[in-house]
Amino acid sequence: MLTASYVRNRTIEIAEAETTPPPPPGSVQIAVSHVGLCGTDLHIFHGSMDARVGTPLVFGHEMSGEIAALGDGVSGWSVGDPVTVMPLDWDGTCPACLAGNEHICQNLDFIGIDSPGALQPLWNVPASTLVALPAGIRLDHAALVEPVAVAVHDVRRAELKAGEKAVVIGGGPIGVLIATVARSIGAEVAVIELDGGRREQVAALGFTTVDPRAVDQTAWVEEWTGGVGADVVFEVSGAAAAVLGATALAKVRGTLVVVAIHPTPREIDLQRVFWRELTIRGARVYQRTDFERAVELVADGTVPAEVLITSRVPLAETQAALEELESGRAMKILVDVAGKA
Amino acid sequence: MLTASYVRNRTIEIAEAETTPPPPPGSVQIAVSHVGLCGTDLHIFHGSMDARVGTPLVFGHEMSGEIAALGDGVSGWSVGDPVTVMPLDWDGTCPACLAGNEHICQNLDFIGIDSPGALQPLWNVPASTLVALPAGIRLDHAALVEPVAVAVHDVRRAELKAGEKAVVIGGGPIGVLIATVARSIGAEVAVIELDGGRREQVAALGFTTVDPRAVDQTAWVEEWTGGVGADVVFEVSGAAAAVLGATALAKVRGTLVVVAIHPTPREIDLQRVFWRELTIRGARVYQRTDFERAVELVADGTVPAEVLITSRVPLAETQAALEELESGRAMKILVDVAGKA
Ligand SMILES: [Zn+2]
Ligand SMILES: [Zn+2]
Repeated sequence: MLTASYVRNRTIEIAEAETTPPPPPGSVQIAVSHVGLCGTDLHIFHGSMDARVGTPLVFGHEMSGEIAALGDGVSGWSVGDPVTVMPLDWDGTCPACLAGNEHICQNLDFIGIDSPGALQPLWNVPASTLVALPAGIRLDHAALVEPVAVAVHDVRRAELKAGEKAVVIGGGPIGVLIATVARSIGAEVAVIELDGGRREQVAALGFTTVDPRAVDQTAWVEEWTGGVGADVVFEVSGAAAAVLGATALAKVRGTLVVVAIHPTPREIDLQRVFWRELTIRGARVYQRTDFERAVELVADGTVPAEVLITSRVPLAETQAALEELESGRAMKILVDVAGKA
Repeated sequence: MLTASYVRNRTIEIAEAETTPPPPPGSVQIAVSHVGLCGTDLHIFHGSMDARVGTPLVFGHEMSGEIAALGDGVSGWSVGDPVTVMPLDWDGTCPACLAGNEHICQNLDFIGIDSPGALQPLWNVPASTLVALPAGIRLDHAALVEPVAVAVHDVRRAELKAGEKAVVIGGGPIGVLIATVARSIGAEVAVIELDGGRREQVAALGFTTVDPRAVDQTAWVEEWTGGVGADVVFEVSGAAAAVLGATALAKVRGTLVVVAIHPTPREIDLQRVFWRELTIRGARVYQRTDFERAVELVADGTVPAEVLITSRVPLAETQAALEELESGRAMKILVDVAGKA
């Protein structure tokens, strides 16, 4: 059995797994099944997070597996239970935690970034991070729960309602999941995406797509909404131009949710924010309720997992998988850690 | 009796008032008492709104007066009633109006900008714009109701609560009124202001002030809030640097209200918006509830009108008053239209 570690300089090291110690009190040991790779893993691979991560780092935080062992004091779980992990470990004492916002704890340990992740056969995590999976769920599909939880959180932060219209800027993996979650609550969705290949993928999932190079996106949204503007705009592209144009798409008192990471400050049309009394809202990771809803959406097939999983690779090929993800063509690449499939 | 009109090129023309026609059906005629001058009037004077305003324009929209005549079909009002005007006339049919946001009607007539204002002895306005003043209120003080209503609206949009901490960036007239309204609901307030003279004015009203050139404002707010960050930050300065720094002052899930006009896009630290799940919210003018609350705050002395009114001028000196306002030293200059005081 192998592990994958980021060791700096765009390098993933594959090594034979050492013996995993038994789970400490309050923790469990998980036999990892699948791990999904995402944009954050790519940031780690690129070295953009070198100031934050200690190396070598066993990374990976989108996962599924089965409980292999229980540490002392863990109750309510049994060996063999299918689980996923909400990879957040908070201190419980900072102002954010005390205000009930543990997911944005000011001293958050994001497991898989700040501490070892799931690209290893046996993984010890605090029992508090476990999220139950229903019996019979496909464990490859269940590795999508974490990014779906991000999308559920984004939609919840938007306060999007049934019958409303949402624009998603950026048709990559998170954009598609936001569109999927938005549609699941009864909203109408349009996805703005520059890349033709991505637009085809998004359209194949039944979403209206807009090519902002072919049409005036503001005029398009104006017409689509009967002159009202979108109830909610999700900025998922990370592009400066997208941020600058996003405010023009929202209705009076509409909401713009900033989902993408913008490493440098971005220009925003505050005149429009003022004129239409817009709300701009940040959304970061998820809370337990989001994870639980995400499990349901994967389990009941609302999330088209088979379409979204564009490839599956053995753990030994993790570096090549990250390079494929980098090309921008893949939706979701799964690493088969257990090597059963 | 005189009128004051903006005629382009930084020029205010004073003329003998022509005979005012009787109020049309549904309107009333007001004998104007006092008119306050504000930043918007200054924008008009500077020519910044030439593309919007028709000239010559009798401007002025912060006012007080008494009803002089009633048009046909107006009920509930009597000649002699002391009133102020909420200077918004909406179409009632656009998407914003239909959604209950008439104050940001997509075809709004802002009276005093888009149609004639109060710098004339007799002024006809739709009865729907009238806001009653309590008997015995000083009409000079009542001319402050409109800017106080702006502040009430800003604080309401912020969802600021008693016991919370608010930072106001910019200690000019609106900043001081926001601080006053915020304090009136039981919030603690600190005002960040570059200008020493303004800081003295603000401090004299009992507010904590911060000189951002003398201290690190982020560190100051951090300490003031025990490491939590401000619940609400009001950006009232209009400065690009203030916007860029504002997000660092807010707590996890805190709110930044954009009050100032920013004619060009501004850089915002979206990384911080994401990281702390901040909310940025636009606030524009007011709704009737804000005006009614503002009347109470002026009438009961919560708003220190005598301190805020830094000078009173006859209508013939309107141009000089705008030039004084331009210097940035005045808080509120009142034009005495009736010439009784
Ligand atoms: Zn914490
Ligand atoms: Zn309207």
